[in-house]
Amino acid sequence: MRVVITGGAGFLGTRLAREILRRGRLTDARGNAQPLRELVLVDIVAPVESADPRVRSIVGALDDRSIVDAVLTPDTDSVFHLAAVVSAEAEANFDVGMRVNLDATRNLLERCRTLNAPPKFVFASSLAVFGGRLPDPVPDDAPVTPRSSYGTQKAVGELLLNDMSRRGFIDGRALRLPTIVVRPGKPNRAASSFASGIIREPLAGVEAVCPVAPETRMWLQSPGAVVDNLLVGHESRSADLPMFRAINVPGISVAVREMIDALRDVAGADVAERVQWRFDPVIDAIVATWPSRFDARIGSALGMRADADFSGIICAHIAEAGRA
Amino acid sequence: MRVVITGGAGFLGTRLAREILRRGRLTDARGNAQPLRELVLVDIVAPVESADPRVRSIVGALDDRSIVDAVLTPDTDSVFHLAAVVSAEAEANFDVGMRVNLDATRNLLERCRTLNAPPKFVFASSLAVFGGRLPDPVPDDAPVTPRSSYGTQKAVGELLLNDMSRRGFIDGRALRLPTIVVRPGKPNRAASSFASGIIREPLAGVEAVCPVAPETRMWLQSPGAVVDNLLVGHESRSADLPMFRAINVPGISVAVREMIDALRDVAGADVAERVQWRFDPVIDAIVATWPSRFDARIGSALGMRADADFSGIICAHIAEAGRA
Repeated sequence: MRVVITGGAGFLGTRLAREILRRGRLTDARGNAQPLRELVLVDIVAPVESADPRVRSIVGALDDRSIVDAVLTPDTDSVFHLAAVVSAEAEANFDVGMRVNLDATRNLLERCRTLNAPPKFVFASSLAVFGGRLPDPVPDDAPVTPRSSYGTQKAVGELLLNDMSRRGFIDGRALRLPTIVVRPGKPNRAASSFASGIIREPLAGVEAVCPVAPETRMWLQSPGAVVDNLLVGHESRSADLPMFRAINVPGISVAVREMIDALRDVAGADVAERVQWRFDPVIDAIVATWPSRFDARIGSALGMRADADFSGIICAHIAEAGRA
Repeated sequence: MRVVITGGAGFLGTRLAREILRRGRLTDARGNAQPLRELVLVDIVAPVESADPRVRSIVGALDDRSIVDAVLTPDTDSVFHLAAVVSAEAEANFDVGMRVNLDATRNLLERCRTLNAPPKFVFASSLAVFGGRLPDPVPDDAPVTPRSSYGTQKAVGELLLNDMSRRGFIDGRALRLPTIVVRPGKPNRAASSFASGIIREPLAGVEAVCPVAPETRMWLQSPGAVVDNLLVGHESRSADLPMFRAINVPGISVAVREMIDALRDVAGADVAERVQWRFDPVIDAIVATWPSRFDARIGSALGMRADADFSGIICAHIAEAGRA
């Protein structure tokens, strides 16, 4: 197998790469388990160095077709497309979002048509494709009427992936990821960035700002579960996928207040008190359009899993931060 | 008002232009009725010559940004975007469909951001955005899971139009048109082309082929009603539009057998017998994915209208063919 991860220098790409290297084999589009021959990490910054001889890194932007051609060589078997401009950034800078979230996705998909065989294509979509009035919980086939440019660009990616799958150009799977907590490192320009920040910073002795109301509910998943679910999405048999290949990934629905209650339970009141409430209408306006409860029926049937509870997510973060 | 019609040399664009010239005024994005100053018809072939001093024609392809820049001058008030590659052609030639149905639409939308003021943008979408298992009748907010490249490209256009409307770049309105019958002229590469052919050709003394089963139902509208409905879409107040600005246009649901029965009633058995049944699995596969009954609640509330019955559609065609 030659496997490509876009956004391979990012936190999720790095974790996914580590897990694929550990497994050492994946199922190809013909349904056969194959050893990993090459794992290509592409990103606009250099990925973490790896001593593993199977890893190859490419630095470049995927809205440039020559980079896409170099990344997706004809013998590529699988693509995990994680590279994206995050929600608040795509809202603040429309052109950057269109270029990275739409043009790069289309370039990758179109390049796939020229490969030796149609590759598996796992697309990191998002719950942000949903917006407006929706059933609660949101089923896989709910209407897609996004209320952000980020959600719009992801929804376009889902449509193109589906059409190209239907035509046999790729074997595509769009997975609508929950908000991932706890992300390590620094805050980013995702509107959901605070959801990691209000856990990560207090645990590190730093104050953190919560820009939304305590009642705001979010659909959450730990990094470890997301990586497992991306791989379930990859390994699933075509025959088990729905006609429209966009799948709600299981998660847990947690109110921001419950997140901080769990932090207090796990790490103590002094840690939890490092969270400052400072309402930000711009962030709140984006987060409030995202539904917070999903009926992830198809994903669950495929074997995707949700975390057991939010305390477990915090504990996993503490354990990993300790190892890092 | 400076008004642009893309696909302005086509049958629908020509009719729409005639009606706009006749009315002489339209409502601008600020809600004020304004006299028509200039009507620009753009197409890849030259439009019908017009003696009207308000009409200007531009020949060029809209996947070329320099043409788009020339067409959408900064003082443009309204765009009717009708230009498209039809369904069977977009299915047969993926790249042409992407270029014309997606790139050209995006070029137009993006150019609108640079105008003096956000223009009204009426986008001819299609019932082909729908596919797969759907409620019957199909409501405006049914899930959009197209089963053709044409439908996919139109659905992407709807998403982009909505996001740009939300951001205030345009005042967009996507209208999902029914299948238009009776189109004059020659068959085209729309999968639905036969629906006009089985009426038009027999009336002209020519045999016509019906490639789908007699039970196949279609959602139909006469050219005159479509033009009126495009103008209702344009004239509607922003405040009356749904949050997601994609609207099912009212139509009538007619089985192919009923269409031919009506032809027999109107024009006689000898005319109706000029229809040959020759099943074409490629055409049938596309047409069969289109729903045939819609709950066009929003469009009806805005004042859009359906034809009274199919006999009336045939009679209107006969009357017009006689005038031509």
